Parts: sequence; C-alpha cells; structure tokens
Amino acid sequence: MDKLKEIKDRFAEGEIKQQHLETMIFNEVYDSDASRLQDACHDAARIRCSVAEESTGVSLDLIKNSRLDNSGLSEGHLLTGIEMKVGAALIPMGLAGPVKISGEYAKGEYYLPLATNEAALVAGVQRGVKAINMSGGIRTQVTFDGMSRAPLLEAPDIDAAKKFCIRVQEDRDLIQELNKEIKDPFVRLEYIEPYQLGTKVFLRMVCKTGDAMGMNGVTKASADIARRILKDLEGWKLITISSNLCTDKKASHINILQGRGKSVHAEVFVPEEVLQKVFKKGVTSRSVERVVFHKCYLGSTLSGTISGFNVNAANALAAFFAATGQDMAHVVSSSAAFVQADAVEGGLHFMVSMPSLEIATIGGGTNFGTAREALKLLGCGEIGTSPDDNENVKRLAEICCTAVAALDLNTACAQAAGYEMADSHVALARGEK
Amino acid sequence: MDKLKEIKDRFAEGEIKQQHLETMIFNEVYDSDASRLQDACHDAARIRCSVAEESTGVSLDLIKNSRLDNSGLSEGHLLTGIEMKVGAALIPMGLAGPVKISGEYAKGEYYLPLATNEAALVAGVQRGVKAINMSGGIRTQVTFDGMSRAPLLEAPDIDAAKKFCIRVQEDRDLIQELNKEIKDPFVRLEYIEPYQLGTKVFLRMVCKTGDAMGMNGVTKASADIARRILKDLEGWKLITISSNLCTDKKASHINILQGRGKSVHAEVFVPEEVLQKVFKKGVTSRSVERVVFHKCYLGSTLSGTISGFNVNAANALAAFFAATGQDMAHVVSSSAAFVQADAVEGGLHFMVSMPSLEIATIGGGTNFGTAREALKLLGCGEIGTSPDDNENVKRLAEICCTAVAALDLNTACAQAAGYEMADSHVALARGEK
Amino acid sequence: MDKLKEIKDRFAEGEIKQQHLETMIFNEVYDSDASRLQDACHDAARIRCSVAEESTGVSLDLIKNSRLDNSGLSEGHLLTGIEMKVGAALIPMGLAGPVKISGEYAKGEYYLPLATNEAALVAGVQRGVKAINMSGGIRTQVTFDGMSRAPLLEAPDIDAAKKFCIRVQEDRDLIQELNKEIKDPFVRLEYIEPYQLGTKVFLRMVCKTGDAMGMNGVTKASADIARRILKDLEGWKLITISSNLCTDKKASHINILQGRGKSVHAEVFVPEEVLQKVFKKGVTSRSVERVVFHKCYLGSTLSGTISGFNVNAANALAAFFAATGQDMAHVVSSSAAFVQADAVEGGLHFMVSMPSLEIATIGGGTNFGTAREALKLLGCGEIGTSPDDNENVKRLAEICCTAVAALDLNTACAQAAGYEMADSHVALARGEK
Amino acid sequence: MDKLKEIKDRFAEGEIKQQHLETMIFNEVYDSDASRLQDACHDAARIRCSVAEESTGVSLDLIKNSRLDNSGLSEGHLLTGIEMKVGAALIPMGLAGPVKISGEYAKGEYYLPLATNEAALVAGVQRGVKAINMSGGIRTQVTFDGMSRAPLLEAPDIDAAKKFCIRVQEDRDLIQELNKEIKDPFVRLEYIEPYQLGTKVFLRMVCKTGDAMGMNGVTKASADIARRILKDLEGWKLITISSNLCTDKKASHINILQGRGKSVHAEVFVPEEVLQKVFKKGVTSRSVERVVFHKCYLGSTLSGTISGFNVNAANALAAFFAATGQDMAHVVSSSAAFVQADAVEGGLHFMVSMPSLEIATIGGGTNFGTAREALKLLGCGEIGTSPDDNENVKRLAEICCTAVAALDLNTACAQAAGYEMADSHVALARGEK
Repeated sequence: MDKLKEIKDRFAEGEIKQQHLETMIFNEVYDSDASRLQDACHDAARIRCSVAEESTGVSLDLIKNSRLDNSGLSEGHLLTGIEMKVGAALIPMGLAGPVKISGEYAKGEYYLPLATNEAALVAGVQRGVKAINMSGGIRTQVTFDGMSRAPLLEAPDIDAAKKFCIRVQEDRDLIQELNKEIKDPFVRLEYIEPYQLGTKVFLRMVCKTGDAMGMNGVTKASADIARRILKDLEGWKLITISSNLCTDKKASHINILQGRGKSVHAEVFVPEEVLQKVFKKGVTSRSVERVVFHKCYLGSTLSGTISGFNVNAANALAAFFAATGQDMAHVVSSSAAFVQADAVEGGLHFMVSMPSLEIATIGGGTNFGTAREALKLLGCGEIGTSPDDNENVKRLAEICCTAVAALDLNTACAQAAGYEMADSHVALARGEK
Repeated sequence: MDKLKEIKDRFAEGEIKQQHLETMIFNEVYDSDASRLQDACHDAARIRCSVAEESTGVSLDLIKNSRLDNSGLSEGHLLTGIEMKVGAALIPMGLAGPVKISGEYAKGEYYLPLATNEAALVAGVQRGVKAINMSGGIRTQVTFDGMSRAPLLEAPDIDAAKKFCIRVQEDRDLIQELNKEIKDPFVRLEYIEPYQLGTKVFLRMVCKTGDAMGMNGVTKASADIARRILKDLEGWKLITISSNLCTDKKASHINILQGRGKSVHAEVFVPEEVLQKVFKKGVTSRSVERVVFHKCYLGSTLSGTISGFNVNAANALAAFFAATGQDMAHVVSSSAAFVQADAVEGGLHFMVSMPSLEIATIGGGTNFGTAREALKLLGCGEIGTSPDDNENVKRLAEICCTAVAALDLNTACAQAAGYEMADSHVALARGEK
Repeated sequence: MDKLKEIKDRFAEGEIKQQHLETMIFNEVYDSDASRLQDACHDAARIRCSVAEESTGVSLDLIKNSRLDNSGLSEGHLLTGIEMKVGAALIPMGLAGPVKISGEYAKGEYYLPLATNEAALVAGVQRGVKAINMSGGIRTQVTFDGMSRAPLLEAPDIDAAKKFCIRVQEDRDLIQELNKEIKDPFVRLEYIEPYQLGTKVFLRMVCKTGDAMGMNGVTKASADIARRILKDLEGWKLITISSNLCTDKKASHINILQGRGKSVHAEVFVPEEVLQKVFKKGVTSRSVERVVFHKCYLGSTLSGTISGFNVNAANALAAFFAATGQDMAHVVSSSAAFVQADAVEGGLHFMVSMPSLEIATIGGGTNFGTAREALKLLGCGEIGTSPDDNENVKRLAEICCTAVAALDLNTACAQAAGYEMADSHVALARGEK
Repeated sequence: MDKLKEIKDRFAEGEIKQQHLETMIFNEVYDSDASRLQDACHDAARIRCSVAEESTGVSLDLIKNSRLDNSGLSEGHLLTGIEMKVGAALIPMGLAGPVKISGEYAKGEYYLPLATNEAALVAGVQRGVKAINMSGGIRTQVTFDGMSRAPLLEAPDIDAAKKFCIRVQEDRDLIQELNKEIKDPFVRLEYIEPYQLGTKVFLRMVCKTGDAMGMNGVTKASADIARRILKDLEGWKLITISSNLCTDKKASHINILQGRGKSVHAEVFVPEEVLQKVFKKGVTSRSVERVVFHKCYLGSTLSGTISGFNVNAANALAAFFAATGQDMAHVVSSSAAFVQADAVEGGLHFMVSMPSLEIATIGGGTNFGTAREALKLLGCGEIGTSPDDNENVKRLAEICCTAVAALDLNTACAQAAGYEMADSHVALARGEK
C-alpha cells in the first residue's frame, strides 16, 4: 500500500500534523469508506509506532499490534477516541465469582471481572466470594445518585454573594430555568449546593446523567450554566468552571458527605462456622472486628486519611474499573470506603459503604472492546434512555461494591489470622497454591 | 485437540479446581514443555471464557482472544501471574512528547506513553509539552526513595511500649539485626518510624527496594521482622502485619509528610510570551496564578482533601501508570500532588511536587507485554542489581512527574482562559480539532 | 460564725458530701435566705480551699478570695453553676477598639474586649483596628445559624436504614411532629441531615436556639427526639445520643461545610497607602497576598489541617471568648477560619470566613460577672424571646469575627514585613514599645 | 489623687497614648516607686474602664475591680503583661480529685483544678476520678517533648532546595552552629525537619524549652536562625518566619505525627465491677468499647476530623488550661486526642493519647495570680534552670492528661448507658443532684 507508506514518510518528516493523521489515511487510503474507519485508525497508530521505533531503536511490536476499535464518525468528523493513538495497553483479566447478590438492582449470581497485575488479588476476591455465598449472599443498595461539577464565581462584595447563595438554595424556578441551558438530553440539573467564602461562591451542581458517569456532560452543562448565571449578575466574574469542590479525581471529604456518582452499601452476615471453614481456625467474628478496628480506624486515623477506612478497597475497585472500561483516574475518589466488622450474636456483620463511586455503563471506555463484553457479562449492557433511566449503572455499582466487599472481607480475615496475608502472597506469587 | 476438550468439560463440571487448570493443561496437553507454557495458560483462559459464555449466553470474543503472556515457571511451579485468568483488558494508548527533561536521572527527550479512555487527555498533555519545550524544558528531581509497611504490635503496658519505641529510634544495631531476617536480596530495611498510641505500637518500616515498587517484598519482610521482634518481647502481641499507617492505596497525609515510593519535584519557568503563544490571549502568569490558588488551594481546602492540591494530577498519572504496567490501585496515593504557579518577573514559575509516587520498572505488570515495551521506550528497561541500584525507576518517576506537570500546566492555563476547558473537551469529543 | 466552722470540720472529715456543701450552708447558716445565696456559695468555696490548703500546705489565697456569683435557685434547688467550686480563675483583660463595623447586625463602633495572657495580642488587634478604621470600616454578615447534635442509631438492616433516611429528608411532617417532643421554648428543630454507613444512621439535628449557644438545649432535645423516633422503629437501637458528627469541640470538616453555630464573614478593602502608613514600608497588597498564600494555604495544607487556613484566628477568638463568657472548649471548632488576601486594583481585599462560630449572649458563663458586663458593652446584653429572636448573638458573632479579622490582618502584614513579627513580640514583651 | 484625675482627663482627650498610660501613672503619680508598680497598672486599667463607661453608658464595675497583678519592670521598662488592660475576666473554678497517678513524673495523689462555666463538667471529671481510684490509679507517661516553629524559605531552584534539605538533615554541626544564634538560655534547638515543595523549603525547628511552653522563645530563635541561614545562601529569600507548619493553634495532622509540646499517654484498667458500681448497671467493658468505636472513630472519621478521636477531650483540657494559666488558644491543638477503650479479660483497658499538649509551668499566665496557686497546688511551682530541666511541666502534662482521661472515661460510660448523658446534664443544671 504505497499511499500509506507515503503518508508515513510525510508524517515522519513532520509534514502531517498529529491530529490529521487518521483523517488523512481514512480519506486518502480508504476513500472515506466508513466500513474501513477502524482500519484507518489502526494504520495511523502503527505509523506512529513505527516513527517512534525508528527514532529510538526500541521495538513496540505488542503495542503496535494491539488494536482497540474505539473510533467513530460524528457529523462527518472522525473521532479517534483518544489523540495520538499508538495502540492499546494490555492488563491481565481474571474472572471471580459467581457471587450471590440480593441488591436493589443486582439480583442473582454475578461474575466479577477483574483486570490487574497483582498476584493473589483475584484469588482473594474468590475466597471472599466463597464466604459470601456460604453465608447466603450479600445485600446491596444505592443510596445516592448524582454527578457534580463546581464552578467558582466572584461576587462584587459579600452581600451580593450571600444574596445569591440564598437564591440558589430557595428558588426552584432558577433550577428549572438553568436546565434550559443544558443541551445534552442525558444530563439534568437536580440542585445546586452553594458554598461561600467571602466574595467567592462555589456552586456545586449536581446532575442526573442516566447510565453515563456523566463528568463530561456535566462539565459542559456547568460552563453553560455559569455563562447564563453571570449574564444576570452585575459585577460578578468567573474564576474557574471547575473549582476542585466537585471533587473530581482527588480524595475529598465533601464527596464522602454529599456523595458523588453513586453511594453504595453492602452487608453480609457471616456465621462463625463459615469464618472457620473458609479462613484459618483462629478467625472469629471478634478477631476480625479487632483487626478492622485497629487497621481501618486506629491506623487509618493516625495516617491522616479522610476517605480510606477500609482494608484495601482500591485493589478490587481498580481491577473492576480496568475490566469494565471505567476512567482509571476515578480510582482515587471512587475507592473511598468505610468498612465495618461487627461481632454480633452468631457471627460477623460485615459492611462496606462507598460514598462516591463514579461509574458508568455507557460513554468513554465502556463503549468498546473488552470492557463492553465485561459489561454485557454482568447484565449491564443495555443503555438507559433518559437522565433518570439508570438501572444498568446502579446494578454495576452494586456488583462493584460486592467485589470490594469480597476482597476486604477476605483480607480482614487473613490479617485476623496473623501472618497469613504475607505468607499467602508469597505462596501465590511462587505458585504454591 | 481432544485432550483440551475433555479438560474443558471436566472443568465445566467442576471436577477441576480453578487453580489447577493451567497446570493440568500444561502437563497433560503440552507434556510440561516449557516452551508451550504461555499456550497452556492461554488455553486455560479460553476455557474459562467459554464456560462463562455458555452459562450466560454472552460472547466474550475479544477477551478470549486478547493474550498477555505473563506466566512463568518457578522451581517447578507454574506461575499464572494472576489467578482465574480469562484474557486481558485493553485500554487505548497514545504517545505524547517528546518532552525535554533536565532531571537528575531523566536527561534528554522522552516520549510520554499514556493509556486512557478519556478524550482530550493526550492532547492536553501534548499542549503542556509544547509549552515546556518552548520554555527550554523541565527540571526534575527525586528527593525521597523508600517503600513502607507498618505492622501493628500491642505492648503489655504503655511503659513497655515507650521503651521499645525509643529503642527502635536509637538502636542502629537493631536495624542491622532485623535486616538479617530479610531473605529478598532486593529489599533492605533502612529505618523504622515508631508511632505509639497507648499500648499500640505502629512500626512504619521503610525499605530500599531497587527498581521494584517493592510492596510485596516489603510485606514479606515486615512479617519476618515482626516475628523476629516479637520473639524477644514478652507479653506483646501482633495485631496486624499491615496497619494502614504504611499507607497503601489510600490517600493519607503520612505519605505526604514522610514520603512513600519516590518523592519527585518538577519545575519549569514559562515566559509570558510562551503562555500567549501556546494558550489563549488572556492567559498570563498572573491569571494562571489566580486560577491555581482558587482551584487547587481555596477550592481544595474547602473540599476537605489532604492530598489533592493540583489541577488533575490523577488523569495523567493513571494514564502513565496503565501504559507502563504499574499497580493501578496505587493511583490513589501516587496522585497526591501539590501544584504551585507563581507569577514572577517575566513569566510563570510552575512547579509540581509528588510526595508518594509508588512506581516500578520491574515486578508485577512492568515485566510483560505492552508495559515492557513502553518502559524500554523510556530508557527504563534495564534492571538494577541491588536495593540501592534504582536509577531506572527514578528516571521513570521523573518522566511520570513530567507528564503530570504537562497536563496540569495545560489545564491550569485552559481554566485561566475562562470557559475553554469545557469547550475544548466538547470539541475534541466531537472531532472538531 | 461557729456554725460554718462546724460544717467545715464535718466536710473535712468527709461527713458532708461535695454536692451538699452549698445547700447545707445556705440552709443551716443563712436560714435559706435567698438574698444570702451567693454568700453561702462563696463560703462553701472557701471551705473547700481551706481543706485543700490544709492537706497540701499550699496557700490558695487568690483563688479563695476571687468570687464570681453564678449561683441561683430553681424550684427550691440550689444551682451552684459548676460543682465543687473553690473560687475563680483570673485572666487579664484588655480593650481594643473602637472599630467601625458595617454589618448586618453590628452597625457602628465597637470595643473589642480581649482576655488573654499573651503579650502583643491586644496591641496586634489594635493595629489591625487602626488599618480597618482608616479603610472606612469592615463589612460583616451571618450566613448560617443553627446548633447541631447527632445521635447515632442502628437499623436492623441496610434497607431499613435507607428507608428511614429518605423519610427524614422528605417528610416535613416528621420534623413538625418531632418538635413536639422538645420542651425547651428556646429550641426548635429545623431539619435533620441523615448520614448512613451501612446499618448505622447518624441524624445530624439542626436547631434554632435564640441567643443561646444552644448545645445543652439541643442535647436534651436530641435525646427526646431519639427516644421518640425509636418508639416507632422496630428492631432499631440507640448507639449513642452524640456521635461526634455534631461535631462538638473537635476540629471537623463537616462543621466547615454544613456550618455550626453561626457562619460569619468579614471583608475590608485596605488601600495601598493605608498598608504603608500602618505597617512597614515594604508591605504591599502583593506582599501580603503572597504571605497569606504561603502560610495559610501552602503551609496549612502541608500541615494536614482541615480547618486552619488562617494566620492565627484562635488567638483573637480565645481572648474574645474568655472576655465574653463563652465555653472555652469551643475554641477548637469556632476558630476554624479561611482568610483571603487578594491584591486588587488599589489595595488589599482582605476577607475572613468563620463557618462554625459557637457563641452566645445568654446561658453558661455569659450570664454572670465580667462577661455580662463585656456583653453589655458590646450592645449584646438584651435577650431574645424565641428560637428565632437572636439578633444579639448575631451581632456578637460579627464583632467576634471582626476581632479575628483585625488580628489576622495585622499579623499577615507583620509577616509580610519579614522578621517584624518576632521582633515586635520581643519588644513588647520587653516593654520597649 | 488629683494627679490621677488629671491624667485620666488627658487620656480621655486622647492626649496620652494607650501604651504610655501605665508608665505615666507610675512615674508621675507613684514617683517610679517599684513597690507601687501594680497599683499604677491597676489605676491605668480603671481609667480605661471609666473612659469606656462614660462613652457607652455601660457599667464595668466588676471588670474595673478585678485585679490581676501581672506587671513587672525589666531594665527600666514597665511590662504591663498585656496591652490596654482594663482588668480581668473571671471564670468559675472547681477542684476535682484527688486522683491517684503512677506517672513518670506525677506520682501520688493530685487535685485537678478546673475553671469552666459548664455545669456537669467538674462532676463528670470527679466520677471518672472515682472509677480511676477504685481501679488503683492511672498510669501516665511523656513520650515527646519539643516546641516547634517553621520558617519558610524560597530557594532559587529545586536543586538548591534539595541540597539544603539534605544538609539540614545530615549536618549535625549545622545545628550546633545555629544554636549559637539563640540568645535565650532556656531555648535549645534540637533538630530541624525540612519539608520541600518545589523551591519552597519549610524548616520545622524543634527546640527544648525547659518548663516553659516555649512558643515565644522559639519564635525569636527561629527568626535569628532564619537570618543566619539566609546569610550563607545566595539567591534565597525569606517568605515568612512562621509558615503554619509549626503548627501553632490550628488542628493539624503534622502535630499528631511529629508531636508538639508534650506527647502524653495515660492508661487505666477498670474492672467490670468498678464499671458497674460507678456507672449504671448496663455499663460493661463491651458496651463502652462499642460506644467509643462508634462515636470516637466511626462518627469522627465521617465528620472529617484529623485530630478529634475522643469523647470530649477539649472540655477537661480547656478547664485545666484556664485554671493553670495556659494560653487558651492552644486548646485548639492541645486537645487533639486518641481515646481507646478495649474490652479485655476482666474489664476495660482505657487509654488516652495526647500527641501535642502545649503546656507550661513558667511564662505567660502561669506566672501570676490564681494560676500560680493552682500550679503550686499540683507540685508544679518550681522552675527548671535549663532547656532540659523540665520535670515540672512534664508532671503538669501528665496531670492534665489524667483530667482528660477522667472526663472521657466518665462520658464514654455515660453514653454507654443510653440517654444518661442528656438526663444528667439536665439534672445537674437543675440542681437535682
């Protein structure tokens, strides 16, 4: 294919801009044939790899040949998914489960797809699943649903700031009016929490976004809304359309208190005899309770965390996110979790609360490739048709919380058994189990 | 291959345990031929997929066919990398750069591999790179290096607790003696920070771990050390070998103050004219300074974060981590970052400090596949030979911090230009740029 | 007075209980003559001092002779104010001001009574007052008013917990019904914020409490309300009537976000020439802005505070609290403050926001002695007649915030002048000024 | 005394400056007779009161007549203690105890002086004392001693910053050399913790300060040291001599981890039968453990505190501080406390850890009046003669921690008894007990 070779040479010479490469190949090599769009994008990726290989002498064979078809056409424009694409990264995927869930949305038995490089993680989830299933399954629920963005405005003086904050809280018509600014049919503004520091007014806008995680939709909406608000406010200024009070991709306490994405809870009652059977002999509800207190509360508080009151929620969460195409930067805030292990009559009452699980079944990485398959496997492949129609993503949130609960239950019990955690990691890494 | 079919059927019937599947195929189908090890593991993964497909009716074609050869043999045992493997997850990868770095370890021009599903991210990094390069490059450094684990012990009374804490701080021989317990030649205990709460003693053990991230090595070491310590202490008990004071995979302030993994800093001086050329007209050092103050400090403090004083460090970090095979759950703690934007004579003094970057060039996901290629591309493919020999990983840490700095510089400037951030996300998502 | 001597001897012998001493003297020595009540209590205090003096050999002359008449009679019972009283502690009081305030409630010129042992503090406030007055005065406002307590209940399962939380948020009749349980005419329940962690339900009850700080009234109300709620909820349990989510007397982020007591803001625009005249020559709006950023934000965030984004709010606050009879343990939470110093056209825009100022003009120490006089001096001596009638305490809150703003303005400017802060402390302590 | 009348008139006319009033009366009315110094200061205070009374029409009788002699002469200068003095504030004082302490420094039986306006507080401490004494007393210890200040410097670039931080950590000669700059014989620099954020270097200087709390001495020392350091560092600048990393009078996590003032621990083992006798029937070690977990950990973590893991440490602490002349603004940071209540074989293992108790037996308010008497009563009236000679203040720290432990033990048990806390507050406030 000489044409492609020629384009590659021109690209290597810097004659073709990065952002034009896919379009040029699509048009010139494939005559804008929509059925060849993915091939065009794959060619572009391979060209970029080749140029990097030639300039560095390093082989990028696997990257070059890994292919994820996430491109599309929109009103004549070629959407490449991400920019400057060279291929795809591969993360090993395991499948734990099936686990019994009695949730509001997840009802039945579910596999738990987990993409991770960490040995012992999938096995750990699986042992937790075993304990859960022997205990009759886990109960789950979603108690909050909303995606937030928080533009920051500056009032001319504190009186104007106060007056506007009161209006935002009390004037329901304002919310309705602002909703008219939102073009995206999958985004609806629910309410605005105003926070004032002197003349600075943070408007934490909370939206329903259907089955989407919603951050991009909400960012756009918040810019439109800020523009609209400022039109009527004399002497006010926009400081930033995103003020970190959202809070996006940072561990923040406001997300704990007010929620972001979904707030999800799970509980399971594990009888003493299940603890004994699944874990080591010394593991009792009381010993697990003490480990969880000392590790997840005494240790965590001394460490100065404001969101990490769990055994290792991020481990299961990151693996579940990678497998299902979520935004991996959301691991920061979504892994916030409170674990409780109460020794009660007859066994262990184990609970996990995740206040800010930012998750999706549509949009971004969930639309394509291995992620799409994983979502379908979980019965979350359908797509809601309105901001409120989000049973798929709530189901997914409950399954995700279950994966976290399974791993944390397992690891809490492993630590209640003394040195077992370290020993088992070593054994698994050595292939002894 | 009838044998394989038969194994599959027995597996579907539950006659073969999950953890025996690879070994059985390897032995029975491939006659334990080491050169066919990866095939055996791939077969096992496909069998698991098929069973899940059959039980759910959902096709897992892409998962089934994605293959990442991360298995190995160790003293006759088959190491599968992760357990219950079904294939691999794919995340699109882009390549920003090259960017000029004048670091302690990174010196020259470097590509920035970024695996992400988020549109605009790679383009954002690239615009930051443009500004950095036009400013003569970025300066980087590593100021801390150490991996920590913190077992928690209980003393019989507070006097015993105090006495032991003093010994841990003052007795250098103790550290030397404890090092004898560590079998892993790539792990060396440097010092122990003791923290006492009544009778409870947290021992935050800090180790050098060469080019490895080191968490598993340190976990093992800390179990051995705890065992050794307790042998001599009458009336003491182990509460847990990992107390969350480490702190692993939670956003914690102790990691900010004491460091974990690597502490890395980057600075670049961006002349006013570069700001004007690369970003919108209104963008000046003063306007960027104000946005960074309001977003990364006023907004962040109000949000109740203890680690998120940045524009969006997690975005670049997660993409860099996914591309280079890092433990994705470490995004939580590694994305802690303080950004500073000082308007000074002639331009913008932009700085990023990342106190707890947990990163590796060897171990876990870095050993295999696309990650290995990405690491080689960055000149970080060699492997140190001792706990102190870690120039590869320090180089990687500096490059990673550069990626974060590039994106945060870009996004801070975008927000200083008013609504640009939202508009550009939409445009990119729509393919208009 | 033989009778008194005899009582003293019997008390020294342990024949009279601590809590009966005042009543016995009142009855037996003063024949229950109400006009001699304070004398009886003072006698009791002196007796306790004498007994302690005799047993230790230490003279308590000043304590014994310091007298604060805070006793009373209520339905025949003698109220001693506090128990086991021996006298009073004395803290030196200075009077800064008058300062010009244009507040919502404080309008005019106000003295600032400050009880403290710290040299330079009153002088520092006074220099801040000077700058404020030369700038035309300070503007103040109250944006939140409500006292909170948070009992913690346990539901039988997470479904019941969720259901009840929804009811608490949506059922306005419930709030009205619960208000019937509250006997105190100065307390009215406004709303309840429910927070759920698994089966645990925190009910953060927010009340109006008139001119009182309200904590005791609200504690009683929350017990009555918890009792009432539990009556209708089968299988639920009370864990504690006060769960630290209130949050009382601890530095907590929930008080920052949701407010407690009063949220107060103050702003003053200080022209450049005022900065030059009042402070050292080098002090400009820009230099103050930089000091405030580095100290109150960069330094504070690195220190791991969640409420201390100010120069030294606690100094002025504690002195104002001691002078006006507030609960000194509330200094912890009430001193939460965000200071902003924006260099703007023509000068410095200086702002202080105090989200959780727990303050009173009636109840506890505000009813008596020097505190009562100080409150009258501030025009805050009247007492509202209902939960909503609280202009006195709001006026006081604005004056208190002004004292904090004056000191923080002064100290920020002093630090912008380099070593001045240390030098001036020394000079004042040496009497050189 | 016509002279005094004349001075008052001139003062009222504004002809005499605030800071000259005491000196003028001392010189002109009392002929600089040192024995009349306190009278001169008291006259000045009364004059200020009169002027305020005349301008406002409010009587300040009690303030005017409360007298605290805290003035002195130093090299011919008159030291007024605080500035613009008008008298003193009175806070009621009670005396709990004696309590049995087996501490490192406090050994024997100690009264607990408590100045507070809160009913039920002294009685609550006393009930805790009763339980402690019936349990054989409380064990206490001091595990850290050091006062800190943290100037903030700016390096010309990150390399210079790193180099200097390393020097500060490794060069013991530097510390010795810097100590030469310190003029105060009661202050000795022990070590410096450097923290780097880009080019900004925070130097947390930790000093021994004898029996003094030490903040003023350390502030002066840190200015001198900063000056000395900067002399040798080209291109460096002082940003502020106090950067909030100290951290002074704000609730900060660095003080928790690194300590400030004294770190103190207390433990007591309370047998089940003592719990039953002293508290209500239902109170068991298990019920107290559960309340402490839910309130001090689950509730506190959800509230977003980083220092408030206790029942109500600030209550006892503030009262003890007011009674013993401590800096009341230090209640913010000194009240940081971790309470543990472990149900163990036979009873309750109750512990309190206070990492940053900033306390003194000499300097500021401790030198005078009722505070001095209270300190003598506690056997803490002597004064050490060097930075290391600080047994008095350590003894005081242990007694203070005991007061906190007594109240928190009592209140935890009260809450374990259901509604008791609210009921008893009401009863005590009504005089029913």
